[in-house]
Amino acid sequence: MIVILKSGVSQDRIDSFISDVKEKNLDVHVSKGVDKTVLGLLGDTSKLDPEDFLANEIVESAERVSAPYKMASRSFHPENTVVKIGGDGSTACFIGDGKTVPLIAGPCSVENEKQLIDAALAVKKAGARILRGGAYKPRTSPYSFQGLGPEGIRILEKAKKETGLPICTELMSASELKYFENVDLIQVGARNFQNFDLLKEIGKFGKPVLLKRGLSGTIQELLMSAEYIMANGTEQVILCERGIRTYDGYTRNCLDVSAVPYLHKVSHLPVVLDPSHACGIRWMVGTLACSAVAAGADGLEIEVHCNPEKALSDASQQLPPVMFEELAVKLNKYAAVEGKTI
Amino acid sequence: MIVILKSGVSQDRIDSFISDVKEKNLDVHVSKGVDKTVLGLLGDTSKLDPEDFLANEIVESAERVSAPYKMASRSFHPENTVVKIGGDGSTACFIGDGKTVPLIAGPCSVENEKQLIDAALAVKKAGARILRGGAYKPRTSPYSFQGLGPEGIRILEKAKKETGLPICTELMSASELKYFENVDLIQVGARNFQNFDLLKEIGKFGKPVLLKRGLSGTIQELLMSAEYIMANGTEQVILCERGIRTYDGYTRNCLDVSAVPYLHKVSHLPVVLDPSHACGIRWMVGTLACSAVAAGADGLEIEVHCNPEKALSDASQQLPPVMFEELAVKLNKYAAVEGKTI
Amino acid sequence: MIVILKSGVSQDRIDSFISDVKEKNLDVHVSKGVDKTVLGLLGDTSKLDPEDFLANEIVESAERVSAPYKMASRSFHPENTVVKIGGDGSTACFIGDGKTVPLIAGPCSVENEKQLIDAALAVKKAGARILRGGAYKPRTSPYSFQGLGPEGIRILEKAKKETGLPICTELMSASELKYFENVDLIQVGARNFQNFDLLKEIGKFGKPVLLKRGLSGTIQELLMSAEYIMANGTEQVILCERGIRTYDGYTRNCLDVSAVPYLHKVSHLPVVLDPSHACGIRWMVGTLACSAVAAGADGLEIEVHCNPEKALSDASQQLPPVMFEELAVKLNKYAAVEGKTI
Amino acid sequence: MIVILKSGVSQDRIDSFISDVKEKNLDVHVSKGVDKTVLGLLGDTSKLDPEDFLANEIVESAERVSAPYKMASRSFHPENTVVKIGGDGSTACFIGDGKTVPLIAGPCSVENEKQLIDAALAVKKAGARILRGGAYKPRTSPYSFQGLGPEGIRILEKAKKETGLPICTELMSASELKYFENVDLIQVGARNFQNFDLLKEIGKFGKPVLLKRGLSGTIQELLMSAEYIMANGTEQVILCERGIRTYDGYTRNCLDVSAVPYLHKVSHLPVVLDPSHACGIRWMVGTLACSAVAAGADGLEIEVHCNPEKALSDASQQLPPVMFEELAVKLNKYAAVEGKTI
Repeated sequence: MIVILKSGVSQDRIDSFISDVKEKNLDVHVSKGVDKTVLGLLGDTSKLDPEDFLANEIVESAERVSAPYKMASRSFHPENTVVKIGGDGSTACFIGDGKTVPLIAGPCSVENEKQLIDAALAVKKAGARILRGGAYKPRTSPYSFQGLGPEGIRILEKAKKETGLPICTELMSASELKYFENVDLIQVGARNFQNFDLLKEIGKFGKPVLLKRGLSGTIQELLMSAEYIMANGTEQVILCERGIRTYDGYTRNCLDVSAVPYLHKVSHLPVVLDPSHACGIRWMVGTLACSAVAAGADGLEIEVHCNPEKALSDASQQLPPVMFEELAVKLNKYAAVEGKTI
Repeated sequence: MIVILKSGVSQDRIDSFISDVKEKNLDVHVSKGVDKTVLGLLGDTSKLDPEDFLANEIVESAERVSAPYKMASRSFHPENTVVKIGGDGSTACFIGDGKTVPLIAGPCSVENEKQLIDAALAVKKAGARILRGGAYKPRTSPYSFQGLGPEGIRILEKAKKETGLPICTELMSASELKYFENVDLIQVGARNFQNFDLLKEIGKFGKPVLLKRGLSGTIQELLMSAEYIMANGTEQVILCERGIRTYDGYTRNCLDVSAVPYLHKVSHLPVVLDPSHACGIRWMVGTLACSAVAAGADGLEIEVHCNPEKALSDASQQLPPVMFEELAVKLNKYAAVEGKTI
Repeated sequence: MIVILKSGVSQDRIDSFISDVKEKNLDVHVSKGVDKTVLGLLGDTSKLDPEDFLANEIVESAERVSAPYKMASRSFHPENTVVKIGGDGSTACFIGDGKTVPLIAGPCSVENEKQLIDAALAVKKAGARILRGGAYKPRTSPYSFQGLGPEGIRILEKAKKETGLPICTELMSASELKYFENVDLIQVGARNFQNFDLLKEIGKFGKPVLLKRGLSGTIQELLMSAEYIMANGTEQVILCERGIRTYDGYTRNCLDVSAVPYLHKVSHLPVVLDPSHACGIRWMVGTLACSAVAAGADGLEIEVHCNPEKALSDASQQLPPVMFEELAVKLNKYAAVEGKTI
Repeated sequence: MIVILKSGVSQDRIDSFISDVKEKNLDVHVSKGVDKTVLGLLGDTSKLDPEDFLANEIVESAERVSAPYKMASRSFHPENTVVKIGGDGSTACFIGDGKTVPLIAGPCSVENEKQLIDAALAVKKAGARILRGGAYKPRTSPYSFQGLGPEGIRILEKAKKETGLPICTELMSASELKYFENVDLIQVGARNFQNFDLLKEIGKFGKPVLLKRGLSGTIQELLMSAEYIMANGTEQVILCERGIRTYDGYTRNCLDVSAVPYLHKVSHLPVVLDPSHACGIRWMVGTLACSAVAAGADGLEIEVHCNPEKALSDASQQLPPVMFEELAVKLNKYAAVEGKTI
């Protein structure tokens, strides 16, 4: 950590500040400029918040030198993490292996058995490797369809049995974890990405996690939330960029494609992109998906529904099977440029 | 709801769309322009999501005419809601009465009994009406101080007994509600403002709620989250603006002072401002607090600590008692311009 | 335009409002709901600002049905516009032809003759079709290098003669247009994208224009600025997305890749992406460039410098020739997926 | 400037980097940590851009210690700047004197002589000290009213003669400066706040300047733009916060009231707030104006029109005289809390 002191501070106050810092088991390097004094704090600074130093009125600014996350950091763990999904009653899928760009596909919500199984068969046929479907739905309005809950999970399990696809679904409350024993990939939604109590419980549960970036989550916050899960016991974490909130509303959110190369640089965790939520408009999903593959995404999550116009949620962004099939063919071509397959 | 159809759509498809809409128990008014057809959907549209209409490819755009919230809306409930805090083992405080601008003050975190009681006595002396203190702390890093939990609540209860001040503290997980029986005002933090499962459980619990706007929460989302609480049984909801996230990081967040007059216009719920989290810098808190009173805030939440430099969280923004006392005097002068007191 | 009136408005006031609107040569369709009255305004509404209707206190909201831009709109001009750059003393390049993704490359600033010619030869060798270089530099600080001005243009002209590449450079003030006679593509920078006086003069000048989106420009504002140029006489306008400003500063700006498909949908003008300014970090430029091609960009603008570390501006984002050559090879592979070449 | 080097860099490369830096007439302090080396660059760093250091691949990050602006900085000029407006053919008004909060009021656009003079008399009667009115209008659409130009200036001069009020109007192009000889305060609009050529010419012209913050301008960028004007000869600069662009569109812009105390801390220049453009809604202007006074604003700019519904621009936000008069009375009460008057 670098702490810059205000100009004109007496040596006494500087000494007293330095001795306070040393009490925290840190070493201090002092660099005196013409005008200002700069302190380098050395040691384990991960528990410190740079903003807290500003409480001392002799401090002008404080900045981290090293990242506040450790387990999620590439410098701590140089090799890529490959997350294994399913394999137990389903065909295993690997995310982050550098050779594949698996598609996680299925409807926004589980609505009933027929609807889910139809969608599952359709996405499997097109080449998807994991089935998604929401049983618990985070809806902005209390009057909207809230999901089938445990019954939705049961239907997902049935689809898994029929298709052999591992299943991915969202958890909204730790008290529902008891229903997630057969879920292969647990999703944390954008609105819960800093629900720290939920992150802790998921970390203890041990299943692979798909962690979505919050609507206005910074890259560093996303990695800190991954750190919560990892520090609680689960290292199989997939990061998911799904569009951020900006000043312009021409799409539902703004796909931040730069997150892929940047996360790959600073972290060893795989990065999946969700073009469906990023744009929220059916006709744009395919173009963004291609763009995501070219950006190096380790997988894609795409919403597919056999009858989107009648869907109970996110009707405007779900693809019908025919569009998804065509898209999968094209994605394979983009993946091939780097020697990968979907 | 106004639905605008694309140009060049056949009458058959328009008729089929209209009959689909009528199945949802809505009336449809058709207005044909030179180029486009505009449909007015009449009836209870609160369960509809305008975006879902976009799933139908004949639709160009869809917009609400009436707000998606009801119970939180001023048109549904024209009179101001006055929220009563405490009164049972503490001195009752009313927020939203139009005559007072009560101060909710105390440390960021409950650190130990002496620290909290000292702060409680100090803020009471200066004129605060409610004591705040965090027992459960939503920290970005898993390595930061996470709060004392139930022991923190116990200390708050003790401070309440000693000072007669009602207590306000944050809930992060519904599973902890069992410790909140004696809490007078339950805070929902910015990071949980769309944790819908938490909102439902708090709504069922029945205690007054202080609902903070999310870091990038829209005003409409804030009201929809209030609606979750109200639809589940608790109408005593206070809305809290605490700074939003923008492109400029010169302050921790950006106090959106316009939220006060706007929320007063569209909702009957009281609005409290939190200048401490808005700026995150001690010397700026007072100025923003004055500005908030002039904007018509129904109360202020301000962090106070007897020794801010040693605080375990948010050290840079907590006021020492002497600054808080001076501020309270000045706030009273600003309140007096509209015939109010703190 | 759709105008929604407040509830409880007397028929007299509605009638008076309608007759005011009709004076503007517009037809009015009235649709009465249970609660609110909705007016459809028909005719040429392009000169109206929906916000102005709010001045009338009986109006609750007002929204456009048709876009406020005309000449830039695809509904007005269904065929793609192909912009021809150069051809007179240089090899012509076509942007927007659907068959090529031309690269516009060269240094951020023209620093001296040798520096520019070296860069020009390097980018030509790698396959770039247009040479860029800044003679007038919009620098945040008055103390930074401000560009060589007319001498920079002279050097660009020399490089054009030596390499046969058309040249692209930024104009900051209409008073300098006299030096732009031999410039093949005039760039309007992000900070001047709503400098309407400049847009008007450029429109009258008649040369092809590369119009950059402002730091927080909406897609609609970008199209309105294109409309300024077109309405003043120049229809050869290329739109350029170069990264927008968001709350997260991990890259210099945030590449909004969705702008490509969206602009293609609503406008006939070609869309170029600038990955260099979008990220501001050399190692990320290539990945974003690939992503841009997959998103359907009609061209790319990339900064290249033979000795980036010594560059007088934007040192951190310029590519050395060897990186640019490798990138061009890869971009050709991505372009090939859709049957295009760079 | 603090430059942090990547870990594992050879001493040779560090030495070579340091000698490069020393060539720029800077001293370098080296601080070696366990892992990383931190360099403190001492001397005049105002011409350096921290981002440029990232061009060198041994550099991990670079941050300024001192502000990049000088003449606008309070550390360079500790006393408040008081800007004198008018006095020559009008009654002088002082902005930044700490005793008054002058109101700059008048219509958005100068529409004709009667309209402006009526508004001028009305605002003078209510207590305004400076008359505003737009002769050159920066409109998003080329089809909207663009202002009367030189004729508008002539009308403003006439109003000045009739009322004795100094006049303030916006300049959009340096080529029009010839008409500004009798203008007392030249406004630079939000869209031109980084039109550096315009800033330079205004700086040379010598009249007091009201510089508006850009729609997504940072506080630092605002001060750098002031620096452009000051470095070119005009030290009489007033900073104006007029609302910024955020993710939420419930108001036209978001009034960033914290800018007042922050700018007062880091700069000696006066700060004026523009509540009209901040919200864009007539009924909210007054509340924001009160809030601005409580935040310590040195003046307010407020749009007033005798018949807002018929205004040719910004109809929805202009106040009729009766509202402005009532507001002026209330603003005086808020100003009185700090011993000031409007």
